[in-house]
Amino acid sequence: MIVVMNPNAEQASIDRVMSEIERMGARPHLSRGEFRTVIGAVGEDASLDATRLASLDGVEKVVPIMKPYKLASREFKGGDSVMSIGGGKVPQVKVGGHHAVCIAGPCAVENEQMLYRIAREVHQAGATILRGGVYKPRTSPYSFQGLGLQALKWMRACGDELGMPICVEVMDTRQVEEMEPYVDCWQIGARNMQNFDLLREVGKTRKAVLLKRGLSASVKEWLMSAEYVLSQGNSQVILCERGIKTFEDSIRYSMDISSVPVAKQWSHLPIIVDPSHAAGKRDYVSALALAGMAAGADGVIVEVHYCPSEAQCDGPQALLPESFKELVTQLRTIASLTGKTFADTGVPV
Amino acid sequence: MIVVMNPNAEQASIDRVMSEIERMGARPHLSRGEFRTVIGAVGEDASLDATRLASLDGVEKVVPIMKPYKLASREFKGGDSVMSIGGGKVPQVKVGGHHAVCIAGPCAVENEQMLYRIAREVHQAGATILRGGVYKPRTSPYSFQGLGLQALKWMRACGDELGMPICVEVMDTRQVEEMEPYVDCWQIGARNMQNFDLLREVGKTRKAVLLKRGLSASVKEWLMSAEYVLSQGNSQVILCERGIKTFEDSIRYSMDISSVPVAKQWSHLPIIVDPSHAAGKRDYVSALALAGMAAGADGVIVEVHYCPSEAQCDGPQALLPESFKELVTQLRTIASLTGKTFADTGVPV
Amino acid sequence: MIVVMNPNAEQASIDRVMSEIERMGARPHLSRGEFRTVIGAVGEDASLDATRLASLDGVEKVVPIMKPYKLASREFKGGDSVMSIGGGKVPQVKVGGHHAVCIAGPCAVENEQMLYRIAREVHQAGATILRGGVYKPRTSPYSFQGLGLQALKWMRACGDELGMPICVEVMDTRQVEEMEPYVDCWQIGARNMQNFDLLREVGKTRKAVLLKRGLSASVKEWLMSAEYVLSQGNSQVILCERGIKTFEDSIRYSMDISSVPVAKQWSHLPIIVDPSHAAGKRDYVSALALAGMAAGADGVIVEVHYCPSEAQCDGPQALLPESFKELVTQLRTIASLTGKTFADTGVPV
Amino acid sequence: MIVVMNPNAEQASIDRVMSEIERMGARPHLSRGEFRTVIGAVGEDASLDATRLASLDGVEKVVPIMKPYKLASREFKGGDSVMSIGGGKVPQVKVGGHHAVCIAGPCAVENEQMLYRIAREVHQAGATILRGGVYKPRTSPYSFQGLGLQALKWMRACGDELGMPICVEVMDTRQVEEMEPYVDCWQIGARNMQNFDLLREVGKTRKAVLLKRGLSASVKEWLMSAEYVLSQGNSQVILCERGIKTFEDSIRYSMDISSVPVAKQWSHLPIIVDPSHAAGKRDYVSALALAGMAAGADGVIVEVHYCPSEAQCDGPQALLPESFKELVTQLRTIASLTGKTFADTGVPV
Repeated sequence: MIVVMNPNAEQASIDRVMSEIERMGARPHLSRGEFRTVIGAVGEDASLDATRLASLDGVEKVVPIMKPYKLASREFKGGDSVMSIGGGKVPQVKVGGHHAVCIAGPCAVENEQMLYRIAREVHQAGATILRGGVYKPRTSPYSFQGLGLQALKWMRACGDELGMPICVEVMDTRQVEEMEPYVDCWQIGARNMQNFDLLREVGKTRKAVLLKRGLSASVKEWLMSAEYVLSQGNSQVILCERGIKTFEDSIRYSMDISSVPVAKQWSHLPIIVDPSHAAGKRDYVSALALAGMAAGADGVIVEVHYCPSEAQCDGPQALLPESFKELVTQLRTIASLTGKTFADTGVPV
Repeated sequence: MIVVMNPNAEQASIDRVMSEIERMGARPHLSRGEFRTVIGAVGEDASLDATRLASLDGVEKVVPIMKPYKLASREFKGGDSVMSIGGGKVPQVKVGGHHAVCIAGPCAVENEQMLYRIAREVHQAGATILRGGVYKPRTSPYSFQGLGLQALKWMRACGDELGMPICVEVMDTRQVEEMEPYVDCWQIGARNMQNFDLLREVGKTRKAVLLKRGLSASVKEWLMSAEYVLSQGNSQVILCERGIKTFEDSIRYSMDISSVPVAKQWSHLPIIVDPSHAAGKRDYVSALALAGMAAGADGVIVEVHYCPSEAQCDGPQALLPESFKELVTQLRTIASLTGKTFADTGVPV
Repeated sequence: MIVVMNPNAEQASIDRVMSEIERMGARPHLSRGEFRTVIGAVGEDASLDATRLASLDGVEKVVPIMKPYKLASREFKGGDSVMSIGGGKVPQVKVGGHHAVCIAGPCAVENEQMLYRIAREVHQAGATILRGGVYKPRTSPYSFQGLGLQALKWMRACGDELGMPICVEVMDTRQVEEMEPYVDCWQIGARNMQNFDLLREVGKTRKAVLLKRGLSASVKEWLMSAEYVLSQGNSQVILCERGIKTFEDSIRYSMDISSVPVAKQWSHLPIIVDPSHAAGKRDYVSALALAGMAAGADGVIVEVHYCPSEAQCDGPQALLPESFKELVTQLRTIASLTGKTFADTGVPV
Repeated sequence: MIVVMNPNAEQASIDRVMSEIERMGARPHLSRGEFRTVIGAVGEDASLDATRLASLDGVEKVVPIMKPYKLASREFKGGDSVMSIGGGKVPQVKVGGHHAVCIAGPCAVENEQMLYRIAREVHQAGATILRGGVYKPRTSPYSFQGLGLQALKWMRACGDELGMPICVEVMDTRQVEEMEPYVDCWQIGARNMQNFDLLREVGKTRKAVLLKRGLSASVKEWLMSAEYVLSQGNSQVILCERGIKTFEDSIRYSMDISSVPVAKQWSHLPIIVDPSHAAGKRDYVSALALAGMAAGADGVIVEVHYCPSEAQCDGPQALLPESFKELVTQLRTIASLTGKTFADTGVPV
């Protein structure tokens, strides 16, 4: 950590900063320039309290040197982590390293029949994990809010029947206990990326966590949220880029493609992309999915519906099954370029 | 709602959109131009499902005409709403209309002694509501997370002693029941603005709700979150602008000053500003507070600490008591320009 | 164009809007709902003045239906335009449709020797157009500003010798006449995307224009800038995505990958990506280049330097020749997936 | 300047960085921590080339300590600079320090009669400098582009008659010579903030420069553009905040209110706000103007039109003369709070 003093900071302020650094267990390292005095704090950054140092008189700014996350960092673990989703009645699907994953399904589970129909179509096309919302975070209190536990039970049964682990969004700490027996992978939505109590609760379970990036979260803040889960002992975290808010209004959210190589460089955790929620419009979904894989992502999560105009939410962004099938074929080719392979579903094509 | 068709949309697609609008209970209104066909849907927008219409073949885009929120809108209530915070052992403090409010206190309650000391200082300076965090949303799992229920009891006792209602952040649905007997005003933090379950839970109580704007929430989304609370029967919602994420990195968040006149025009709810969290640095807090009042806000919420370098969180943004006192004097002058008055604390100055 | 009236707009205001629309040569189309009156203006949007309509009493907002650009639009030209760069002593290089292009070279021309060395390396690796800055737009007046005309002459000679058309940035209207005899393709930098006089001047020439997207320009504004060039009679415009400003600070600019499919849908103009300026750091350049091609771009422009630490500008983002060579190989594979081919340089590999 | 090495940087890389720093004329200062090696470069930052250091092997990042601008900085000049606009036939109007300025007029000069009428109204209301566009930067090539030199001559005559210096936008280097005899203050528009050739040209004149902030320029980049003008010997630069691009779409641009105290802290240059272009809608203009003054701005620039629906550009944002008059009265009150005074126009009210 480096403390930059104001141009006119007094000696007493400089001394105070130095003794404060020592009190925190680090070694101060004074460097006087013609225009600025800079004090390095040598020692583990984690033991240093940047905010406290920044509050001291005469301090202009504090520049951290170490990354604020640990368990999520490449320093903690050099190689790529490989996560396992599923097990028991359904196969274990791997994500990370050489294993690319394709997660697909409807935005929301609307009824049993549509769930099975879509699940079969995406499975046949190459998806190995089934997604489907049962509690839906909706901007409006007057919109469809999901069918809850009943829909979750359908998801479980459907996943078991087809041999697909299921990935389901959890929105509230009170749902964790109720949902845990059914899910294989928790989804934390973008709006809950900094719902710290929820992160802690799923961190206490031993189910994988798909952590979507918040709409205005930096890559660093995103990894800090992963750290919340990891610090509870749950090491199965998969990052998911789904677009950020920018000034551009031609699409719903701007997929931050650079977050893929950045997160890969900073962290050992796998990262997948969600082109459906980024685009908000099916015309752009395949282009974004392919771009994500080309940038080095470990997979995609895509929404599919056989009749988008009947969908109770997010119909405009759902791919038709035939487009999805074509997309998976192209994804396989790109994956091979980056040394990754999508698992076979075992379904005869 | 207006449906714009693709330049080359077929007649069958146009017919389908028109019959779908009728099925939703509205009247379709066809308008063929040289280059585009546009279909107006006349009727209450709320009964219309924009997403479903947008999913139909041949539709380029759907333009909503009505605002998506109702109870929060000026159409629902023309005049300015005046909220009441407190009552019982503490006085009722009004916010909205001609009543400006000054909420102040420490970022986090660190111990009983510091709480009382800061509370007395801010009360003396002119604050009528006491703020103080007991559960803290921290980006890092390794940072101080607040003292919880014990701190809340100190807040209650301190507020009662000084005659100040208290405003305390709630982070998790499971905390609502436990905290309700103690708080006068819930604070919903920026990161929880779209924690819809939490909004519903505080909406079921009859305590006022200070709803901070999410870091990437549009004014419309913010009012939709207010709608979640209002739709549960709790009409006491106060909006709080605290800065948004932009590319500018000279301050922590960019206070969106225009949200004040915009929210005032669209909604009858009071709106206050939080310059402390926007700025992240005390040097800029007073300028932003004054700007907020000049733009028409109904008050401010400010963090104060007598020794910022000892603060366990957000020390760099805490005003010193003497600066706060000076700020309140200037705020009173500006408030009078916009026809508002800060209540007297009853403390002899 | 659709005019939405205020909820309480008077009949006189409605009449005024209708007669104004007629005066502009379009047909007004009245639609009264329960809560809002909406007036459609049927006719060519271009003849309608949205700002003037928005200024009338009682108008809440004006919603344009048509795109504001014409010559750049898919409505004007359905198929993909193919541009030709070069000719004369150097071969004509095609961009657009099935033709992918690879432009490469140093950020700035620093001396003759380095230019030739880099040009040979990128040509050998597969680049068919040579880039190199001679006037450099620098944030600081104290930074290296380029070598000007002398450097341009070296570029010309080097391009001629290797058989590569050259692409060079022009910054000021006064440079156009001087530079025109030498360049094959003008580069308009991001900071000049709305330098309308400059756009007009290059629009009057018959050399191709590589139009970089402004750092905060929407896709629509970008196409409007293309329209400036096109409207002067120069139909050779190539769009170039180079990143936009967002809150994310892990890279220099966020490459807006979705601009590729969006621009493709809205316009017939070719679009390429500039991963070097987006990333600002060589570690991320290849991932972004590959993502751009996978999203459907018509090519890339990449900065290369054999000794980045000696570069006089933007060294940290320059790829080493060997990394560039590897990148080109991967780009060829991805291009084939989207039905595009990079031209052969004729250099024996 | 501080160079942070990669965790696994080799000794040779460290040595190279140290010798490079020495070669640049500064003293390297090595600091080895448990996890990171950090090298401080002690000496004037300006002589150090951050980009070159960042290009060296093993370097993770380079953190500048000094601000990159000099002449614009508080270090260069501690007190507030006071600029003088006008002189000769018109009075000299001061801006900065205790002098607040009110600049007003039409968006574009449409004809002689309207110019005089608006100029008289704003002068009467309290404006001391007249604004009016003669060359208009328009997003569309098909929009009204201004009346050019003829309009400028009307501006000059009108300013002379009323005793108001005039402020006029220049868009192109080729216009500088032609316009110079007529203008008192150049306006550099937001889209030209990084048109470096234009900055240099107006920097060579001795007329004041109103430098609007670019739509995606950081405060630092804005001051660097001021530095371009200052470095040519023209010390009369006035900053103008006019809104930045954010995700918020309820207004045209988000006025970055915090840029006022930040620019004040970093620079001695005066700063005014332009609420008209930020808001894009007259309903919000007064609130933003008042907020700007309350935050410490040195004045405002406001667009006024007696019949906005006849305006040839930006009608929706023009204040009516009576609203403008009321605004000026409120601005005077707020200015007095921040120790500033608006000059008297000498017009009997």
